[in-house]
Amino acid sequence: MDALDAVLTKIEVREFAAEDVPYDVQKKVLEAGRMAASAYNKQPWIFILINDKDLLKKVAALANTGPYISKAAFAVAVFVDPNNPFHIIDGTRAVQNMMIAAWSFGLGSVWVGGLEREKIAELLKVPKNLYLLTVIPFGKPAKKLKGKKTRKPLKEIAFLNYYGNELK
Amino acid sequence: MDALDAVLTKIEVREFAAEDVPYDVQKKVLEAGRMAASAYNKQPWIFILINDKDLLKKVAALANTGPYISKAAFAVAVFVDPNNPFHIIDGTRAVQNMMIAAWSFGLGSVWVGGLEREKIAELLKVPKNLYLLTVIPFGKPAKKLKGKKTRKPLKEIAFLNYYGNELK
Repeated sequence: MDALDAVLTKIEVREFAAEDVPYDVQKKVLEAGRMAASAYNKQPWIFILINDKDLLKKVAALANTGPYISKAAFAVAVFVDPNNPFHIIDGTRAVQNMMIAAWSFGLGSVWVGGLEREKIAELLKVPKNLYLLTVIPFGKPAKKLKGKKTRKPLKEIAFLNYYGNELK
Repeated sequence: MDALDAVLTKIEVREFAAEDVPYDVQKKVLEAGRMAASAYNKQPWIFILINDKDLLKKVAALANTGPYISKAAFAVAVFVDPNNPFHIIDGTRAVQNMMIAAWSFGLGSVWVGGLEREKIAELLKVPKNLYLLTVIPFGKPAKKLKGKKTRKPLKEIAFLNYYGNELK
């Protein structure tokens, strides 16, 4: 899928088909995150690829806003180093890369931020000095996706050279 | 350009060719940002498209880590609403979309974060309640790009189900 098409059409997906995703595709999603840019190229991230079905259910139970993690084909828990002042930005850049690449493979995903972070870190045996930015569930979208993509019009959010100066 | 290729190959670009970029391409980059997902679809962002050469130089002079803004074909200043708890994440998602789309058009870019934020906001006439996340210069890369893309190996940053458990 073309890169522009991918970013324009990608929509957050919360309902997944009960269909496995090949392991090499899961790894390509990780690669997309690995190759992200970061401040001073510090790459202050760790990815936990979760594809064990029982573990997905356990993580889902610790995600207030992400029960759909239990139905995902796999998920990626993204931990970042909070001592790096750019950890939120850099971690997010890696996540967005993963989501866009996944979408281009026909996989939906959604940012899950409502998490019992310490419990999930403990479950995944991740050192306590790392911060859980998000858990992203991935999977083939369910046949009937609810919702459609709505965004503010460009003229409302973008201006030419100066705030308030309309785009041509 | 294929979406996966785009995220895998995109490298931060700090040296730009002295070549203009068509206005419709500049707008496509904004569109890529506009269509990003955000928490509760709040879209807590404002984009200022800067393509006035004098203004680019003035912004560059206020960017400690971004003198190359002065040589960009255009730049996008991304402001976010700091009252939105997800403003850094959401703004970053929009930025990453723009950078990936631009790369697919053959345009390089770089995250500039060392900014005299209040002065730039004043220069661009942006209301004081908004926070300047970054200014991203865009342009065709100079012929001889310095630097190459180096990243930690996947096995060092990614694990299978549990931290420390190697990927297959």
